[in-house]
Amino acid sequence: MTRFHLVVASPDRPGIVAAVSAVIAKQGGNIATLDQFTTDPADGIFVQRTAFDAPAESEASLRAALDSDGATRDLEWALTTASPKRVAILASKTDHCLLDLLWRQRRGENRMATAMVISNHTDVQRDVESFDVPFHFVPSRGPDKSVAEEKILELLAGNVDLVVFARYMQIVSSQFIERVGVPIINIHHSFLPAFIGAGPYAKAKARGVKLVGATAHYVTEELDEGPIIEQDVVRVSHADSVRDLQRRGADIERAVLSRAVAWHCDDRVIRVGNTTVVFPG
Amino acid sequence: MTRFHLVVASPDRPGIVAAVSAVIAKQGGNIATLDQFTTDPADGIFVQRTAFDAPAESEASLRAALDSDGATRDLEWALTTASPKRVAILASKTDHCLLDLLWRQRRGENRMATAMVISNHTDVQRDVESFDVPFHFVPSRGPDKSVAEEKILELLAGNVDLVVFARYMQIVSSQFIERVGVPIINIHHSFLPAFIGAGPYAKAKARGVKLVGATAHYVTEELDEGPIIEQDVVRVSHADSVRDLQRRGADIERAVLSRAVAWHCDDRVIRVGNTTVVFPG
Amino acid sequence: MTRFHLVVASPDRPGIVAAVSAVIAKQGGNIATLDQFTTDPADGIFVQRTAFDAPAESEASLRAALDSDGATRDLEWALTTASPKRVAILASKTDHCLLDLLWRQRRGENRMATAMVISNHTDVQRDVESFDVPFHFVPSRGPDKSVAEEKILELLAGNVDLVVFARYMQIVSSQFIERVGVPIINIHHSFLPAFIGAGPYAKAKARGVKLVGATAHYVTEELDEGPIIEQDVVRVSHADSVRDLQRRGADIERAVLSRAVAWHCDDRVIRVGNTTVVFPG
Amino acid sequence: MTRFHLVVASPDRPGIVAAVSAVIAKQGGNIATLDQFTTDPADGIFVQRTAFDAPAESEASLRAALDSDGATRDLEWALTTASPKRVAILASKTDHCLLDLLWRQRRGENRMATAMVISNHTDVQRDVESFDVPFHFVPSRGPDKSVAEEKILELLAGNVDLVVFARYMQIVSSQFIERVGVPIINIHHSFLPAFIGAGPYAKAKARGVKLVGATAHYVTEELDEGPIIEQDVVRVSHADSVRDLQRRGADIERAVLSRAVAWHCDDRVIRVGNTTVVFPG
Repeated sequence: MTRFHLVVASPDRPGIVAAVSAVIAKQGGNIATLDQFTTDPADGIFVQRTAFDAPAESEASLRAALDSDGATRDLEWALTTASPKRVAILASKTDHCLLDLLWRQRRGENRMATAMVISNHTDVQRDVESFDVPFHFVPSRGPDKSVAEEKILELLAGNVDLVVFARYMQIVSSQFIERVGVPIINIHHSFLPAFIGAGPYAKAKARGVKLVGATAHYVTEELDEGPIIEQDVVRVSHADSVRDLQRRGADIERAVLSRAVAWHCDDRVIRVGNTTVVFPG
Repeated sequence: MTRFHLVVASPDRPGIVAAVSAVIAKQGGNIATLDQFTTDPADGIFVQRTAFDAPAESEASLRAALDSDGATRDLEWALTTASPKRVAILASKTDHCLLDLLWRQRRGENRMATAMVISNHTDVQRDVESFDVPFHFVPSRGPDKSVAEEKILELLAGNVDLVVFARYMQIVSSQFIERVGVPIINIHHSFLPAFIGAGPYAKAKARGVKLVGATAHYVTEELDEGPIIEQDVVRVSHADSVRDLQRRGADIERAVLSRAVAWHCDDRVIRVGNTTVVFPG
Repeated sequence: MTRFHLVVASPDRPGIVAAVSAVIAKQGGNIATLDQFTTDPADGIFVQRTAFDAPAESEASLRAALDSDGATRDLEWALTTASPKRVAILASKTDHCLLDLLWRQRRGENRMATAMVISNHTDVQRDVESFDVPFHFVPSRGPDKSVAEEKILELLAGNVDLVVFARYMQIVSSQFIERVGVPIINIHHSFLPAFIGAGPYAKAKARGVKLVGATAHYVTEELDEGPIIEQDVVRVSHADSVRDLQRRGADIERAVLSRAVAWHCDDRVIRVGNTTVVFPG
Repeated sequence: MTRFHLVVASPDRPGIVAAVSAVIAKQGGNIATLDQFTTDPADGIFVQRTAFDAPAESEASLRAALDSDGATRDLEWALTTASPKRVAILASKTDHCLLDLLWRQRRGENRMATAMVISNHTDVQRDVESFDVPFHFVPSRGPDKSVAEEKILELLAGNVDLVVFARYMQIVSSQFIERVGVPIINIHHSFLPAFIGAGPYAKAKARGVKLVGATAHYVTEELDEGPIIEQDVVRVSHADSVRDLQRRGADIERAVLSRAVAWHCDDRVIRVGNTTVVFPG
């Protein structure tokens, strides 16, 4: 038996749960977990994630049945097997988010297979290679990022299902986002929408906040405005310097990014408009 | 349309989600939310809570259909309408848990209708009456609690769906628990199973713990051993006296008990053996 | 013996701790707790809170000694006895922050003596009066708030040490803030600086955040920009409506405001520029 | 100027703060931070940590002054320079606590210099060596641990200021604890005193708790009964298997141990009886 994930995100109407579960049952599938949500019972978007076990060879007939069954054929859905997603991690000099992802992959804590790490510095190269993961140095100096972006797009093309910015300190162009063709997850080092933009810890110190946070979100053309996947905070005090805030924040950044990536790789994050539905595991 | 809650807790086998949702759909019901869990896909207990809207008059035919349908008739299930549960709160001298429950009821935050408050002291009487809730003083001195318990059982008989011990500082007999005939929720002022029994904050101070907590659980014959519904903790330090621990702990006690009672009243807590499945709202 | 609080906030230089503790010791005082912080060892502001026990009659000689001692006479300091502060609470229709403050005062959890509650509605009147606290209804309709503000200033004049806005849904003028002559603490229903201004929960829902928060701060002429005293957050999900966010947020609002007020009333909050130094108790 | 830490832990009496700060001032020291606590103003233990800057060459005269000054010579105190402590980490097969300590040391987040890692397995050897830290494999099979313990004591003798058990799955003898001559910090994988002994996550699953935790404590002869330094918890649910609890718990274990070790290495943890006073940084 193979584990499948079926994600439905479609305009709501009565009977979707029954219809989908009937199709799965008819194809010999056994539902392990079902999570479901509707943004509005009247006029909303219905979202359902069903994890089920079925014979590996039933995938084609499952797709055909969902497409042809009178009760499901109008639905928007995606069916995947629960195999690890191929991931490219982009990093700069700091290692905390990057190492936490690689280390969790090695421990088998996420459905992730890191295909490569790309950095505009070489500081993390030795660590990455100790995990037997390919490392690519793509420098990116000066105002023109197009050469670097082109190089990165070549490395990614056809090789990954997800790109993760693990404190990648470069602003990418909208062309890059369009052409990359897979979702991008970024970690922002503040509790968005507080402290949008650069230098959030210095801004947090100046404002005298009592908590600092981090936000993992999908990258869209609007900087720091993409759908939020996960957030968390940690308590700080007047006694913490900007450097202390960075240190405390780093713990939250790595935890938040690792959770967001693990959930995404397990098909637990569904975009609805500029927000996400997350069914945590 | 009326909101119904259908809770299934039954030995797991393939097809239960499909079977139950098909019955609901056939009876004109529209599923609002579905939460589901199995303790073990191989050989476990399948638990499902379905909230759905259906014509009020369909209740009888829903019950008949679940009882007769070939795919559901072997299941153990309970069907309720989402109306407020009738609750008796038992308290002693402290007011924090009691007031939080009454105040949330007044704000419409839980599906709860407090039928009465019973106390072995009169300290809270004025507050209870300011919420227009009947108050009964049932003193309970000396080692023989049977007269007090008999009086309480008389007050409760047929009038409540749930009993809540809101820091009720009396140990009740196993006969009481048997005869009361409805679930009892207790708040224990520690993070169980740490500090079982009396005086948990003094024990916590002596042990030098860095967090204190509270536990809401169903009451069974085994003191402090019943199924846990909810727990939480708060950070403390060496500088906190036993009195400080009590004060900090009180905030957690009221929060934990209020959540547990709200979830129970919304049919979100399902007992499985000596544990609970909780689908938080 | 009387408990005194001595708060020093002065340009830093070597020897302040020694100088202040020597004066206290010479006057027969015994230090119970001492908290100290400097914003910058080189060129910063030195902040120290000392709680000590001394004969009640020594207050005058303590003041004289601090003013005349060669090692302390250049310091900026404030000396108070640890008696309850007289507080006016301003509220509107919602009761959660107001009641939490009054409950805690009744339980002896804060050094606070509520002199009056003022509201632009009468919804909370019955509750306030059940605490035997004077209630004043000061309506405030239409764009001209000057009559209402004048009335409130009359009620406050000379009677309070602190004003608390417990979800008081009126914007006060800068003249009011100047003339009131005592600190004002406000609770903002978001994790500032996120969602400044009106309707933060609706904004939070639209942005799809995964936590909502609350911020207690001193009121200054800049709306929502005053020194932050305390903040906290609670986890929310896609399944929470704006109404749910308000409900979850209310729990955090009352907790954050109660902590901030308790700390202020215990002389644990010291303003330094637009930030605060807080020595939590 | 050198940073010194002076820790006083002595029977309380009036004037200690003044006496100690006067000695420091007389020797040309400038206090950076002072934390102070007394277990009981009447009859307790006075604890004070003072971090101050003074000429490196003043150490001897500081010690002499504290020993001879009439106001300090009866005190129990310890003076150290704020240099990194030499640490031996003992680990078994799991790497999460070990790597978190080494990562943080490399980032300069704690005042720690790992002198060696000792393990009864070789699983972590490659990782340890990638940090250029000496690794020693000391197998420990069978009931007689004395050979292994002897070997470890030889490796440690004179080389370390602290031993850390980073999920070291061996029970050490009381002779070992006596002879090691430096403090030992252990991480226990539960919120002590809940689930003392082996297999805490399986016990937690059976009990149906809603939080799991971890406890860092000094090792004493009484297993799991030593003074607690730090604790934390993470929320779990019915849906978490024992394996899931282990995974979630691992995140808390490494965070709690890293904080405890960092505070110890910065002289922020003072043992008082079987509890600790912790002044977090």
